[in-house]
Amino acid sequence: MARGQGEMNAAPSIILVEPQMGENIGMAARAMANFGLSDLRLVRPHQAWPNPRAKATASGADQVIDDAKLFDSVEASIADLNYVLATTARRRDTFQEIFGADEAARRCGTKIAAGGKAGILFGRERWGLQNEEVALAQALVTLPVDPRFASLNIAQAVVVVAYEWRKVSTLGALPFSADTGTPATHADVEGLVGHFEAALDRAGFFPTEDKRPSMARNLRTLLTRAGFNAQEIRTLRGAIASLERKRED
Amino acid sequence: MARGQGEMNAAPSIILVEPQMGENIGMAARAMANFGLSDLRLVRPHQAWPNPRAKATASGADQVIDDAKLFDSVEASIADLNYVLATTARRRDTFQEIFGADEAARRCGTKIAAGGKAGILFGRERWGLQNEEVALAQALVTLPVDPRFASLNIAQAVVVVAYEWRKVSTLGALPFSADTGTPATHADVEGLVGHFEAALDRAGFFPTEDKRPSMARNLRTLLTRAGFNAQEIRTLRGAIASLERKRED
Repeated sequence: MARGQGEMNAAPSIILVEPQMGENIGMAARAMANFGLSDLRLVRPHQAWPNPRAKATASGADQVIDDAKLFDSVEASIADLNYVLATTARRRDTFQEIFGADEAARRCGTKIAAGGKAGILFGRERWGLQNEEVALAQALVTLPVDPRFASLNIAQAVVVVAYEWRKVSTLGALPFSADTGTPATHADVEGLVGHFEAALDRAGFFPTEDKRPSMARNLRTLLTRAGFNAQEIRTLRGAIASLERKRED
Repeated sequence: MARGQGEMNAAPSIILVEPQMGENIGMAARAMANFGLSDLRLVRPHQAWPNPRAKATASGADQVIDDAKLFDSVEASIADLNYVLATTARRRDTFQEIFGADEAARRCGTKIAAGGKAGILFGRERWGLQNEEVALAQALVTLPVDPRFASLNIAQAVVVVAYEWRKVSTLGALPFSADTGTPATHADVEGLVGHFEAALDRAGFFPTEDKRPSMARNLRTLLTRAGFNAQEIRTLRGAIASLERKRED
């Protein structure tokens, strides 16, 4: 399959095997939409489909829910895919590599970039995937959970995998960037330091001439390290000037 | 505060501001326990506390729920912390840096390693944190959501932040490792290639002598690239031998 043939193939499919609760399907769908995934596949969901609970918890991710595909078997659900990973919360007695969600996302990205279709299998709420289902996958995915509390909700596992996919597919770009203001130059900082020091001098802040150099250096350090921007330096200089005027009143 | 003074301080606190639904508190607590966080703080939760819905959805993360601390204001909830980040789904009109969850986790790790206590603020389900609350934080955190569907569930945002914290604090270690078998040597692979080729020779697989080199090379490539381990190579050689015996019957 050629690269970019359809938007639907440009991200991994999420395949939920025998999901028990509509809420989990809905939450998984919502996380998929949050992180740019769209192809949801359900293998023998326990409750009738369409499922109003799934729709409600999807919280607006209707497209993912409406487009979800139903399958009778895991084999059928992955038949058109080129690269399949299986999530697991425990070690399996198979010769399969185990990736974290970040490496899993990178591997899927590589396969998709080469024109393939990738998918990630998620098992049942209570007991995951059967060994025979795990054996259908090229490799395994697990999350770095605390072994003292390793029971991960299925939708939350989807959140993490989808999030890592998004990081890979957008090269870590965030949806908006900071406005950290106009960067200050060192001359701006120097102006602030000089202004502050002169004001403190007039206020009698430095007790003796021999203590002055180290106290002045400390002030310079804290004012430099803070990383104020140009606007903030103007604000601070205005504040210093205002305090001085107050003293003179 | 000295490093390692208490396990409770060794990971960031999660602070939920005016959470509306007990389910979200419970799901957040579960994710915290999954990823090794324990200090949950609640600022003016809408429903009475303790909240049975929170306990139910925490799904066994009782310690986090039972130990959750209640506060009347965001200021009070962070008073003992040294480094506070505020999550936001939208750009704010402030001069604050914005980190992804991975960078946020690294920054918290740096502060904690230096003996400080860190915390991450999460806003209300519907409208997040107020500007005055955001201004209490050293910097902002946001997630790389698809702008077409940016509405992230609060507990799912906690999942991602907690997961990134776990990655940082365990250096990406997974809870168990793969058993990929005894690595095969190139001599093992060579034995398989030779065995296979000889068997195919006897079976008349190679149509002409001039096609033989490229066909043999293709076989060698696919058998080498597959990355079989020593056990798998023995299994395959057994399978080839079995097929040959079958032909001789």
